[in-house]
Amino acid sequence: MKEQDLYLGIVAVNYTTGDISTPNTILEKKIGVEENYIFRRTGIQNRFYLSAEQSFLNLALSSVNKLLAETEIKPEDISVIICASTTFDKNSPSLACEILNQIDPAANNLDCFALDINAACSGYVYGLDVVKNQLLSTYTEAKKNYALLVTNEAFSHFLGNSPTSDIIFGDASSATLIELSAHVQKNWKATIHNSQIGSVRDRKNSIVLFNEYGCNKMLMNGLSVYENAVKTMTYSVNKLLSVNNLSVSDITMFIPHQANSKIIEAISRSLGVAKEHFYCNIKEFGNTGASSIPICLTEIFYSEHKQVPYTKGMLTSFGAGFAYGSMLIEFI
Amino acid sequence: MKEQDLYLGIVAVNYTTGDISTPNTILEKKIGVEENYIFRRTGIQNRFYLSAEQSFLNLALSSVNKLLAETEIKPEDISVIICASTTFDKNSPSLACEILNQIDPAANNLDCFALDINAACSGYVYGLDVVKNQLLSTYTEAKKNYALLVTNEAFSHFLGNSPTSDIIFGDASSATLIELSAHVQKNWKATIHNSQIGSVRDRKNSIVLFNEYGCNKMLMNGLSVYENAVKTMTYSVNKLLSVNNLSVSDITMFIPHQANSKIIEAISRSLGVAKEHFYCNIKEFGNTGASSIPICLTEIFYSEHKQVPYTKGMLTSFGAGFAYGSMLIEFI
Repeated sequence: MKEQDLYLGIVAVNYTTGDISTPNTILEKKIGVEENYIFRRTGIQNRFYLSAEQSFLNLALSSVNKLLAETEIKPEDISVIICASTTFDKNSPSLACEILNQIDPAANNLDCFALDINAACSGYVYGLDVVKNQLLSTYTEAKKNYALLVTNEAFSHFLGNSPTSDIIFGDASSATLIELSAHVQKNWKATIHNSQIGSVRDRKNSIVLFNEYGCNKMLMNGLSVYENAVKTMTYSVNKLLSVNNLSVSDITMFIPHQANSKIIEAISRSLGVAKEHFYCNIKEFGNTGASSIPICLTEIFYSEHKQVPYTKGMLTSFGAGFAYGSMLIEFI
Repeated sequence: MKEQDLYLGIVAVNYTTGDISTPNTILEKKIGVEENYIFRRTGIQNRFYLSAEQSFLNLALSSVNKLLAETEIKPEDISVIICASTTFDKNSPSLACEILNQIDPAANNLDCFALDINAACSGYVYGLDVVKNQLLSTYTEAKKNYALLVTNEAFSHFLGNSPTSDIIFGDASSATLIELSAHVQKNWKATIHNSQIGSVRDRKNSIVLFNEYGCNKMLMNGLSVYENAVKTMTYSVNKLLSVNNLSVSDITMFIPHQANSKIIEAISRSLGVAKEHFYCNIKEFGNTGASSIPICLTEIFYSEHKQVPYTKGMLTSFGAGFAYGSMLIEFI
């Protein structure tokens, strides 16, 4: 293991939303609040829900299959598959194994590390860290060193019992291909650097997703989430900057978990960073849990946003538990 | 990161079972089979179920609190907490965060990597690998480098709808303290070496745990599990031996996941190893999923078994998905 000589890169990333576009007006009527109430409180205008035909597995496979088509990677080149979700639809088998059963029916790959993880809305940052360390531990020059990081969130299966969360969450999956290599590759979108990851105390059981008498439910204490999210992401970003001898002005784009536009604005104030440096697309998707950061990355890497001369970026997330994490990346 | 100069050790391990001892006679009467039917087919005589007063969280905390009392480790010394389960009782918050909220109410530790993982019955071996790589990635001489690996299984919440699985599974948690250090420590029970981990195709959806209309259910295709388990664990053990230039005779004790005594006997035949070299305590506990290997380790490290002059040991596991893994350890 020689981490100092190796580079970790994001080769490709994409996302898939639920099929049913659901603008605020539908929800405002349903929960009985005035027009524009949701946008004023959350910055959200729309979110997508799974249709009755879209299964949890198929949502994930949509992103995975697009990724395999784009990159032309074979399933047997994947050393690690990590699936992050807050909304797993069953206890067993794992989504990671289910995906491999689908994409490698000929069983060409028997040695893929296949694991489901749950760090709620911090699943992508936690997942990147697990991917990084697993790839490092099995690296050899003789083989391809690819990992697949999937996020898959079907929050709509947990909504309907609490207006506080009903207005915020949406459904989406994502798939990211990550490569460990002795050289930075031309086709990479970004390199992944170090992280600052942890967990802080939730004294109020602020975000709970559970099943009660056959009904999935979600309960959220919005104020407690807001206060802890702002404080903790500010702490995490500052700590990671400090470890890297960087200041906030060295980061051209912060890519925060899209929890609520009020939280994103408060972090930008708390860090003293103009909000233009905080990527925000929550208006269109709502909060898609572990999928929110990779949706942002897809937009940044594949759209006109890429024209902006980005250099360093920082992912930062916070979610139920509370589990949080930040990660430094460098745009290519 | 200098893995070659660092050693990973198991400092302590313990387990807790469900409160209700449930011998075969009770189940044989319930499902209407003759006396001794269960023991003949599975090698199991007893298993433990959670009582109505024992919650999922409390089952895990019993083991964690015993571990903290035994080792006198403070919560702030723990860099990583990984919780492995097949039978998580809710989607959010993670068990890892719930445990930290309980054992560190004063919030002395804000930087603990806290993650739930699901690799079914291979959760302990997958978890050890994640722990190893996470500890390596954050190692510094200046701090304590401890990880807590918790397994927590409440299979009884998923039983009652299929005699095939009803007769096999039991409830138990475990807690393992793992340390990364520049020196092998006197108080360690074993050192942890390399692993061979992967996943093979399950074409028959052989082990499924899900919730249907408010009822947790478990379905299992026993024959498919048996055939794949024997083939895959044999493959994994042979591959890990080969990577280490070892032969089966170098391993004084194989510690397999306790799935079914027939599977354990078949692997011992398939590897050409006398069954005395396969640790087996399934008679007493049934199949406790991710908790079965750490229960074996507790018995080996803390009981008269320790008197046997063990040197090298090998953990090997197989479970739903199918996810499998083997790991080489050295007894101290």
